[in-house]
Amino acid sequence: MIQRPRGTRDFAPDEMETRRYFESLMRDVARTHGFREVSTPIFETTDLFIIKSGPGIVEEMYAFKDKGDRELCLRPELTAPVIRFFVSDLTTYPRPLKMFYFGQCFRYERPQSGRFREFFQFGAELIGAPTAESDAEVIGLAASIIKRTGLKDYRIRVGHIGILRSKLTSAGVKPDDMVKILQKLDKKLYDEARPLMKGAGMTDGDLEDVIKTTQITGPMAVLDDFTGEAKEHLKQVFEVLHAYGFDNVSVDLGVVRGLAYYTGMVFEADAPALGAEKQICGGGSYSLSELFGGEKVFSSGFGIGFDRVLLALKREGTTSPRTGIQAYVVPVNEKMRAQAFKIVADLRDSGIVADIDLMRRNLAKNFKYADSIEAHYTIIVGEKEAEVSSVTLRDMGSGEQVLVKINDLVGRLKK
Amino acid sequence: MIQRPRGTRDFAPDEMETRRYFESLMRDVARTHGFREVSTPIFETTDLFIIKSGPGIVEEMYAFKDKGDRELCLRPELTAPVIRFFVSDLTTYPRPLKMFYFGQCFRYERPQSGRFREFFQFGAELIGAPTAESDAEVIGLAASIIKRTGLKDYRIRVGHIGILRSKLTSAGVKPDDMVKILQKLDKKLYDEARPLMKGAGMTDGDLEDVIKTTQITGPMAVLDDFTGEAKEHLKQVFEVLHAYGFDNVSVDLGVVRGLAYYTGMVFEADAPALGAEKQICGGGSYSLSELFGGEKVFSSGFGIGFDRVLLALKREGTTSPRTGIQAYVVPVNEKMRAQAFKIVADLRDSGIVADIDLMRRNLAKNFKYADSIEAHYTIIVGEKEAEVSSVTLRDMGSGEQVLVKINDLVGRLKK
Repeated sequence: MIQRPRGTRDFAPDEMETRRYFESLMRDVARTHGFREVSTPIFETTDLFIIKSGPGIVEEMYAFKDKGDRELCLRPELTAPVIRFFVSDLTTYPRPLKMFYFGQCFRYERPQSGRFREFFQFGAELIGAPTAESDAEVIGLAASIIKRTGLKDYRIRVGHIGILRSKLTSAGVKPDDMVKILQKLDKKLYDEARPLMKGAGMTDGDLEDVIKTTQITGPMAVLDDFTGEAKEHLKQVFEVLHAYGFDNVSVDLGVVRGLAYYTGMVFEADAPALGAEKQICGGGSYSLSELFGGEKVFSSGFGIGFDRVLLALKREGTTSPRTGIQAYVVPVNEKMRAQAFKIVADLRDSGIVADIDLMRRNLAKNFKYADSIEAHYTIIVGEKEAEVSSVTLRDMGSGEQVLVKINDLVGRLKK
Repeated sequence: MIQRPRGTRDFAPDEMETRRYFESLMRDVARTHGFREVSTPIFETTDLFIIKSGPGIVEEMYAFKDKGDRELCLRPELTAPVIRFFVSDLTTYPRPLKMFYFGQCFRYERPQSGRFREFFQFGAELIGAPTAESDAEVIGLAASIIKRTGLKDYRIRVGHIGILRSKLTSAGVKPDDMVKILQKLDKKLYDEARPLMKGAGMTDGDLEDVIKTTQITGPMAVLDDFTGEAKEHLKQVFEVLHAYGFDNVSVDLGVVRGLAYYTGMVFEADAPALGAEKQICGGGSYSLSELFGGEKVFSSGFGIGFDRVLLALKREGTTSPRTGIQAYVVPVNEKMRAQAFKIVADLRDSGIVADIDLMRRNLAKNFKYADSIEAHYTIIVGEKEAEVSSVTLRDMGSGEQVLVKINDLVGRLKK
């Protein structure tokens, strides 16, 4: 038997219906927020991700050469492709330019629970001005999407990379050391961060102050003692989020997102239902387009781990509505087949989910099949009924059967 | 500037909206026909496609080794992956099992007009019994989908590979020669087919009879002189399609689809708007699962070239509806910002596509931006209006402005 590749998944009909339901829902929320969808290829030149994340990324990707010896890779994430697209084709669009996307991403690593080599990401990018409203719009979209999925327990934590950066700069840390230190702080690896900070020339006092800062979490009031642009910016972001009615958003200066291109606000969302690996969303404002040869622009965005959100919903017991088969049509014999096909065609044309016997089964077997596909009704197309332009409509739940005029079927079945 | 890989495309918001519109429409039609969606990975083991199509396929694919030295490739089509999935996981599902799918496929060839290295395919597979109804159900779904896209000019041509096969067998052709001959006949390369047929031991009379047979096209009546199972099967298929109301379906015994695994009915759909490369859909009944280690089952299916259908629609001048931005909210000053965000949040929660000034622009610049994003209305959140719990609603088409109670906004804007 041919196997599917390791770390990948096939999706059967029930699961796919759930996935498409939540995918559509996310897309609808993004659209109502004035974001519009864009799409980029499944593979990119490897350089794109090396420029963004450094050469170490190659080890974590499906990288390959095409027959023209070009270095390509399956995309590990979607921000870099979307910003590449922006730089090459979308710079003349009105600003703010608000884009969203949904698609497969790939990582080459040991498959483990909830982490696949092929996974799905929903995300958004906003390109415009560095206003608090722009950052709030991005957080607001992420929060609205998560809320609309029906996830019960989730937390959004918002920080500002500028606060730590200015503290590190004041303490004499040089840009090259800064990234390494921030990466350790991001992972809360304080024992590894301390020697790096000492090595970068920080005093013990400055060092402990930075570590204490990354541990500041809570409502906006925890920043009361802070001054400066970053604090003012965060305050305005929270005001907008408050106007939106989001109450499970808090300050967390420990959100660092250890990548060099983040510039200001940074945020993450967690779903406690997922346990240790609880992050479902991450983002912030960043500066990437100039790395790809474009002008420097303000941008802010996020990625939502679609598979993780679905897993969190499942753990919380949230389900999506099932469409099901509304009507299953059965001709009682060969003579009635043409009429049965005419009926099923009319139902389908009216948007009713309808199916028909294709196996030439007897009535008992057809009822069994109708049950197995969870059909709500079976329509029995019989000769006697046809004489009065009618069919027998059987409610598969109650077993009740009624005679219905063929012309009334659509009205009767249309919800 | 970093380029996107050759032969691939990015899709900007307008184009993406069109693509999603038609993708949803196809999905909806498939669902109303009782087909359910499945999904498989972007890459597969290379063997899967070698088993299906022979080793020659490797040259036409993006094939690569992963770090575990496994031979993988980007999928060139979706029937083989779906049947692999069926064999490994879906054999216990009730039959008929009706599946559809939509996704990217990849081919490694010289990019040319309308043919990309990354392209999109919509398709369906039915696994059940070899009844005429099953084949008609598959053709009927393809036809319904094409019809519902709004494509004006399209033709569906249905043949039966069994007719040619039995003629070739009667004429003494061996199975190995048969495939090669059928591939030439599929491409109407008669000058190349003739020496192959002679070499396979056919008489001139048999040879010309086969060639004449591949040229038989027209209504069902063109098969009046034929007898046998294949003709009877086609006749019943056409009866069902007639019950469905499809009138642009004709017989074409020249539809051969030169691949060894087709077993009976074969069909293609063309859009004349595309010129020489006019095929938009192809399919038929086939036997694949036993090649992948499963039981032999009856299966019938098709693939629609999504990009080609969109190109044909474009050439015919068919467009898709635009959603557009229903309302663009502008606070007249900083003081009104919280109220403006509250208003836009309420509109969005009600499903209204709404946007808001994120750039702190003045009113004139905001009107200009509202026009550029094609907003239907601008909502001006002013201080005086707020005193009477109202806003100014400006129709961006007519320029007309009216005072509207904030509580009435949703009702007024909801279509």
